[in-house]
Amino acid sequence: MIKAGVLGATGYAGIETVRLLLGHGGAELVRVVSHSNAGTRVSQLYPNLRGICDMEFSALDADDIAESCDVVFTALPHGASKEVIPKLFEKGLRVIDLSGDFRYDDPVVYEKWYGQPHSDPELLKQAVYGLCELYRDKIADARLVGNPGCYTTCSITGLYPIVKSGLADNHSIIIDAKSGVTGAGRGLSLPNMFCECTETMKAYKVATHRHTSEIEQELSHAAGEDIMLSFTPHLAPMKRGIFATCYINLREKRTTEELVELYKDFYGGERFIDVYEAGSLPELKHIVGSNRVGIGIVVDERLGRAVIISCLDNLIKGAAGQAVQNMNIMFGLPEETGLENIASYL
Amino acid sequence: MIKAGVLGATGYAGIETVRLLLGHGGAELVRVVSHSNAGTRVSQLYPNLRGICDMEFSALDADDIAESCDVVFTALPHGASKEVIPKLFEKGLRVIDLSGDFRYDDPVVYEKWYGQPHSDPELLKQAVYGLCELYRDKIADARLVGNPGCYTTCSITGLYPIVKSGLADNHSIIIDAKSGVTGAGRGLSLPNMFCECTETMKAYKVATHRHTSEIEQELSHAAGEDIMLSFTPHLAPMKRGIFATCYINLREKRTTEELVELYKDFYGGERFIDVYEAGSLPELKHIVGSNRVGIGIVVDERLGRAVIISCLDNLIKGAAGQAVQNMNIMFGLPEETGLENIASYL
Amino acid sequence: MIKAGVLGATGYAGIETVRLLLGHGGAELVRVVSHSNAGTRVSQLYPNLRGICDMEFSALDADDIAESCDVVFTALPHGASKEVIPKLFEKGLRVIDLSGDFRYDDPVVYEKWYGQPHSDPELLKQAVYGLCELYRDKIADARLVGNPGCYTTCSITGLYPIVKSGLADNHSIIIDAKSGVTGAGRGLSLPNMFCECTETMKAYKVATHRHTSEIEQELSHAAGEDIMLSFTPHLAPMKRGIFATCYINLREKRTTEELVELYKDFYGGERFIDVYEAGSLPELKHIVGSNRVGIGIVVDERLGRAVIISCLDNLIKGAAGQAVQNMNIMFGLPEETGLENIASYL
Amino acid sequence: MIKAGVLGATGYAGIETVRLLLGHGGAELVRVVSHSNAGTRVSQLYPNLRGICDMEFSALDADDIAESCDVVFTALPHGASKEVIPKLFEKGLRVIDLSGDFRYDDPVVYEKWYGQPHSDPELLKQAVYGLCELYRDKIADARLVGNPGCYTTCSITGLYPIVKSGLADNHSIIIDAKSGVTGAGRGLSLPNMFCECTETMKAYKVATHRHTSEIEQELSHAAGEDIMLSFTPHLAPMKRGIFATCYINLREKRTTEELVELYKDFYGGERFIDVYEAGSLPELKHIVGSNRVGIGIVVDERLGRAVIISCLDNLIKGAAGQAVQNMNIMFGLPEETGLENIASYL
Repeated sequence: MIKAGVLGATGYAGIETVRLLLGHGGAELVRVVSHSNAGTRVSQLYPNLRGICDMEFSALDADDIAESCDVVFTALPHGASKEVIPKLFEKGLRVIDLSGDFRYDDPVVYEKWYGQPHSDPELLKQAVYGLCELYRDKIADARLVGNPGCYTTCSITGLYPIVKSGLADNHSIIIDAKSGVTGAGRGLSLPNMFCECTETMKAYKVATHRHTSEIEQELSHAAGEDIMLSFTPHLAPMKRGIFATCYINLREKRTTEELVELYKDFYGGERFIDVYEAGSLPELKHIVGSNRVGIGIVVDERLGRAVIISCLDNLIKGAAGQAVQNMNIMFGLPEETGLENIASYL
Repeated sequence: MIKAGVLGATGYAGIETVRLLLGHGGAELVRVVSHSNAGTRVSQLYPNLRGICDMEFSALDADDIAESCDVVFTALPHGASKEVIPKLFEKGLRVIDLSGDFRYDDPVVYEKWYGQPHSDPELLKQAVYGLCELYRDKIADARLVGNPGCYTTCSITGLYPIVKSGLADNHSIIIDAKSGVTGAGRGLSLPNMFCECTETMKAYKVATHRHTSEIEQELSHAAGEDIMLSFTPHLAPMKRGIFATCYINLREKRTTEELVELYKDFYGGERFIDVYEAGSLPELKHIVGSNRVGIGIVVDERLGRAVIISCLDNLIKGAAGQAVQNMNIMFGLPEETGLENIASYL
Repeated sequence: MIKAGVLGATGYAGIETVRLLLGHGGAELVRVVSHSNAGTRVSQLYPNLRGICDMEFSALDADDIAESCDVVFTALPHGASKEVIPKLFEKGLRVIDLSGDFRYDDPVVYEKWYGQPHSDPELLKQAVYGLCELYRDKIADARLVGNPGCYTTCSITGLYPIVKSGLADNHSIIIDAKSGVTGAGRGLSLPNMFCECTETMKAYKVATHRHTSEIEQELSHAAGEDIMLSFTPHLAPMKRGIFATCYINLREKRTTEELVELYKDFYGGERFIDVYEAGSLPELKHIVGSNRVGIGIVVDERLGRAVIISCLDNLIKGAAGQAVQNMNIMFGLPEETGLENIASYL
Repeated sequence: MIKAGVLGATGYAGIETVRLLLGHGGAELVRVVSHSNAGTRVSQLYPNLRGICDMEFSALDADDIAESCDVVFTALPHGASKEVIPKLFEKGLRVIDLSGDFRYDDPVVYEKWYGQPHSDPELLKQAVYGLCELYRDKIADARLVGNPGCYTTCSITGLYPIVKSGLADNHSIIIDAKSGVTGAGRGLSLPNMFCECTETMKAYKVATHRHTSEIEQELSHAAGEDIMLSFTPHLAPMKRGIFATCYINLREKRTTEELVELYKDFYGGERFIDVYEAGSLPELKHIVGSNRVGIGIVVDERLGRAVIISCLDNLIKGAAGQAVQNMNIMFGLPEETGLENIASYL
């Protein structure tokens, strides 16, 4: 039984990690850390856990964590994260970090998009990018995993095969992404109040969202050259889900069927990536509640452009679910352990 | 491994039963019957089941069902139901019926509320009312279970202990219930179109809803005398959930704490009934996605009236979840098998 | 042209007053006051007013208000309200107060429900309760109007005729009310974040909500005796609307048709109160966006109980619309001036 | 007083036209035609109009319409439309058609996208495309106006100035559009049931939606050459609104401020087109409920690409509002008559 702790457990990604661990089977949740709620029972803040998780949030105590846990999930704000992760790492813990801090190959890119130097470039070198389907082998040996963002996982998964194929103009990529409101987290903010975000839609951080850099990094690996792309995030009036509509110009003529084939080959036995047949497309209700990515493809032959739909549950495959999948890989468990929830559709 | 079939599997209660059985562990889904969709793969209609349930809907064939299944869940419209259930019953199958047909002690009551004579009063006598927490012993021996309605389970569970206690005026009961739209089913209807039921609320079938009779039947048992009560259903703009606010006048002075105690005693070890401490109340997000009923109590000492909040997920504890719980009881499995999903809160 | 100011104009009731005044025709909006946003253009906070209201919020300056305005709408928190209203009143302004401070006949009742002594009992005596359909004549002569709350207007309007008729047991009243989230205002609060209140429902302040006392005050007037009643507010996942389901036991046998007749007689020529024919009931989408109250009645003859549905738009007839209606009455304008918006249904 | 009739008045675009005409001031609604609801009062189907429009739907009678009306709005399905419009046109009526039938310069384009030959190519020649801000002069003299679609108005308005400017690569256009569910109309359909489309999102008719051809037609006019573009419609869980995110590659370096300037120049005095300052972007809640288009621009200088946000209320500026605006132009009324509703924000 893996002993797991969750730091920053009151936020939405943190508590989703808690929820998944409680039903995991191969891991035991032994610590839930929340600075501001230390001493409160988890089930007081999240009464869906009444009778299921009646442990208390504790304050952060790195020594205690190191003694009691084999692995920690850190879902902390940047400041807190940079203090605590090196300490836990030194003590020999495996760390799966849900923040943006350990997702970069190059601290310069981090600095450019986060507006401050990386706090620990040495440690960054030891981190593995936790997109399970791409880096499974490295993750197995990693002691520090930078768990990808929600927009990121969705976009990269949707575009990786076509970019890697060389069939498309990798400089023509546009990703138009729509997110549910849990993506904005649990912090109080006027724009995320019910009356401010139901029955409306907006785009935000157009051309400047940090996840752009993560997507560019990974698709550049796929392309074997530096790629820059457009990424436009939108907020839609729903709780969960990322729905990314990706556009890329084809350099050679291909049909929808041929690209579907390409994707099915690429993702062959992947349990959590579902490539739809030509003529059908994923919708959020097909995957929300599960750890899956749904991918659908339409080639617009009139224009020589592929439209690729990619969608996932931002709190599961886009955060907590992928984090647990990373844990499973790191500890040699079957990758789907604790992640077999079926999307609810309704 | 119990072999299970679901009849009427395309409706919302039917497909939720399918979903729960797919993750059950102790039962195997061997038939999914849908007259109108015979030959179609389940996952075509419900793509959340892609790769998880790729069997096809079959047309109804009682002999085939009888041979292949140990138990069938019937989620059929009234007409179809009355034809097929006697046939399956005769063939020795256990039947858990999600319609209203087998929920009554007395066919006269059925006729009064359903506007037609009961089609099989003899068989009705052999049916057991499937409210698990009240009739566990009888259910264990039953071959035909009338699975309670969603409003019904919620209301009865919320009021049973106080009615049974004799502390209240059992003729003063008012149940004001609010339902999510899945309660209206999958049939096409203008009032259930998105644009007609989002951002609005209505009451319907005021003083005439059929579930009234079920609630009266069971609370009359609790009271040991005939009870009539007000039941007002409302439609609220959400997918899942029944939220019942119940009012009953106390005949003796009691505090909130005392009634909470009474309820905690009554429901002692029940895994799926969660009585909240005085000062806290259940909300739908605490229970939707789980098989739980949340119950909270406030005594209005100024008026000598108890207000009892009871809520559940209408598709789980209000339909498919309770049906599976009934199956577990009938087959001697631990009652919670396949029903341990944690409410998602988000 | 009436010169009007709005104090506390950034809140939801305040800005709705602004919006109604901008389309009023007989009144001109000359001051919008917001302490915390002084100097900001109204249309920066509420871009729906771009090009329509580009004035700036100003800090509160009672002298300036007194000079520039004929009437002020105060939508301030309690503290601010009690300072400023006496000052404005002294200066000869007409004041329509949207807070709870000037809605009571008796400061003792205020103190009991608000937990502190009334700050100006003398001024309270001069205030008129602004439920237009009941106190039209007094309002015409008033200089200070206590504009009723949203739950209050809905509940009183729904019950007044039956209570006044003497046909019912006025001690049996139960009001089960459901509110949209704008009712909770614009203040940041975790429970009103989108992800915390969509797809769920809760009851709150059961047996203790302050509006209870307002409803009791007015229905006691109708009854000619002191009445106490149950009032249970709920939060539903929608922006606007109060939907009150009211229960009252009949002392004499009456049919639905007879009670509808009684209500139609009582509300005869009222433009903003719409009593539905027997057999039909109002829904929120029938009235949201308008200044109307929709009322529907069902007599449950089995139980001798009337169920009365009353609903309105909490920001219009439940706040800003009624406030403007009060202004119209006070200044001798046709009562419907600026209030003829048709509910949008969609 | 213009005498107006609405044909196909029960659909969502039809009833919105009715609602706008009822509050218009310069026009009188004299006929509301609905084949399937002839004899029913309008307010029975749409109780928001109780006491406001108690006329009955009538069956279609072209002679009666011709005698009683000066102008008709036709919101009919294709079949019905092609029968009745020529007849009404011959009788000298002005016709504003909300269907797709009279929006094309070239019947060949119509045939290509609608899959059937145009039924009346001669009449098509006499029709004017009713995008008011572009064709105001022609509309003034027109007797038949093809009222643009919702996606269309939003997309064209958003892209016209940049395309016309010659600054951009007109062959690089991608429009990613999100629609509320009223856009799908009132017809019964499973995918538009509440439970099927709340809390989810989907793309549909990718690369094949008919509105593509309308957008291409108009932007080709702007460009002075044939343009083909990508248009991807999505369904989002909200009632009203089109939110189009448009991408176009710049051929010359320009800043956001420069493009905003270009747009402000182009739309100079337009009352219903609101170009946002650099640094701010429109959201649906800023415009839903009004006849406005909100336009915002961000230049991604890193990529040399402009991202243009355009949004509107699909039932107002995207259908009924623009139709009324067309009527105002055709009859020489101030263009904003009856269209001054302020977006509600809340």
